[in-house]
Amino acid sequence: MNITNPKKMRTLIRKKEWRDQTAGMIPGFVQANLVILPKKYAIDFASFCVRNPKPCPLLDISSPGEFRTYLAKDADLRTDLPRYHIYKNGKLDQVVLDLMEIWQNDFVSFLLGCSHSFEAVLSSSGIPIRYQEQGINLCLYSTNISMQSVGAFKGNVIVSMRPIPMEKVTRATFISARYPKTHGGPVHIGNPSLIGVDLNIPYIGDKPEFLPGDVPVFWACGVTPQHVALNAKIPFMITHAPGHMFVTDYLLEDLE
Amino acid sequence: MNITNPKKMRTLIRKKEWRDQTAGMIPGFVQANLVILPKKYAIDFASFCVRNPKPCPLLDISSPGEFRTYLAKDADLRTDLPRYHIYKNGKLDQVVLDLMEIWQNDFVSFLLGCSHSFEAVLSSSGIPIRYQEQGINLCLYSTNISMQSVGAFKGNVIVSMRPIPMEKVTRATFISARYPKTHGGPVHIGNPSLIGVDLNIPYIGDKPEFLPGDVPVFWACGVTPQHVALNAKIPFMITHAPGHMFVTDYLLEDLE
Repeated sequence: MNITNPKKMRTLIRKKEWRDQTAGMIPGFVQANLVILPKKYAIDFASFCVRNPKPCPLLDISSPGEFRTYLAKDADLRTDLPRYHIYKNGKLDQVVLDLMEIWQNDFVSFLLGCSHSFEAVLSSSGIPIRYQEQGINLCLYSTNISMQSVGAFKGNVIVSMRPIPMEKVTRATFISARYPKTHGGPVHIGNPSLIGVDLNIPYIGDKPEFLPGDVPVFWACGVTPQHVALNAKIPFMITHAPGHMFVTDYLLEDLE
Repeated sequence: MNITNPKKMRTLIRKKEWRDQTAGMIPGFVQANLVILPKKYAIDFASFCVRNPKPCPLLDISSPGEFRTYLAKDADLRTDLPRYHIYKNGKLDQVVLDLMEIWQNDFVSFLLGCSHSFEAVLSSSGIPIRYQEQGINLCLYSTNISMQSVGAFKGNVIVSMRPIPMEKVTRATFISARYPKTHGGPVHIGNPSLIGVDLNIPYIGDKPEFLPGDVPVFWACGVTPQHVALNAKIPFMITHAPGHMFVTDYLLEDLE
């Protein structure tokens, strides 16, 4: 299907005509991770995100009960993502296609930066994205890099790892650092063990093949805040389903 | 008095041995603006700041009742600023030297980026700061640049204006854009009327003398969120007194 703009994409999703991943669709436009929490936990989670901006870049917070976002006029956060995960006490309870039935007036929605936009920028700057070339999933790792904790929210940073040709590491660093809203520059370059990572033990995803001269480069990953919120065993929490993100009307450059 | 580090500065303030402005003290360390609101208004204000990051760069949010901040170990937000303003229904009600008597468990503290750190960077990059040279106050203007509104929080951006020699405008833009936590790059360069500004009518401060070749450059100003919160006529609100900021343990570069 040839979808040319974010509004069209969201309309198809709202009509349930698009139920697949949004990852990779409409390149150039920022896609956001969604976390919805009851108001009771919202200030602590906001505080946690502000204190850990690399893994948790806040793009928007909505008022309690509000399902609009300034990131896309007329969008409805209850219907405009193709798939939602509902967690109870830190466990996946249900997968739903919209939130109309379960929406409550004390829900606070957080939209967070996502590495997909950021990969598009690297890619268009001549930096190869190995996992895409190799047709596998992006590889994430747990690290020993601890975060500022707030109340029940705490843990270590989860990172994504991309093998980068050594002569392009500076470029990848310089370019990604330009975009703090999608995790900014790398948290580590070169030696996995220094951040507690064994390349053979992913947190999730597939270990990519390294080409000669490739160096492992680690970026903070948007999975971190979800992982932290789940570990906090909040009684009730909603997120997007992996890969099924919210498509905004903004280009990455608009948000910086 | 020769104060050499932030902790020493905060200790003197806490002992009431320093009651003056912090502006200009301990160059290099980030100083932060303070806004304290009852929990009831906190999510909306957090949302407002996230949606308007140029005038309202969030450095920290504390949990309700928490008077600590990750920006300085052992600091106490109730005592470590030299002077606080207490506002009721948008009007200045009291000036106090600490908050020990009036602290409540539903107070949420926001620390916001402040242009003082940012001026130090411009200055050390060879960019003249005219109001300092001329021994006057920084000049702020109201603009017609509207912000994303959230609940009672709304209004236009307030800007600071600095005359910059035309051959250094690119440098000032490039350098300041590097630091989004202290308002980032200019919101406008060159033509005041395009943003609704008459240089002869400051919002506050003194109009500086322009030297031949100087161009007016406008940056979003940290007064904006205070101004907005006051206009919202929140029943109870606390801020730092102008110039009497919170001195953090962080260098600007640490926060980016």
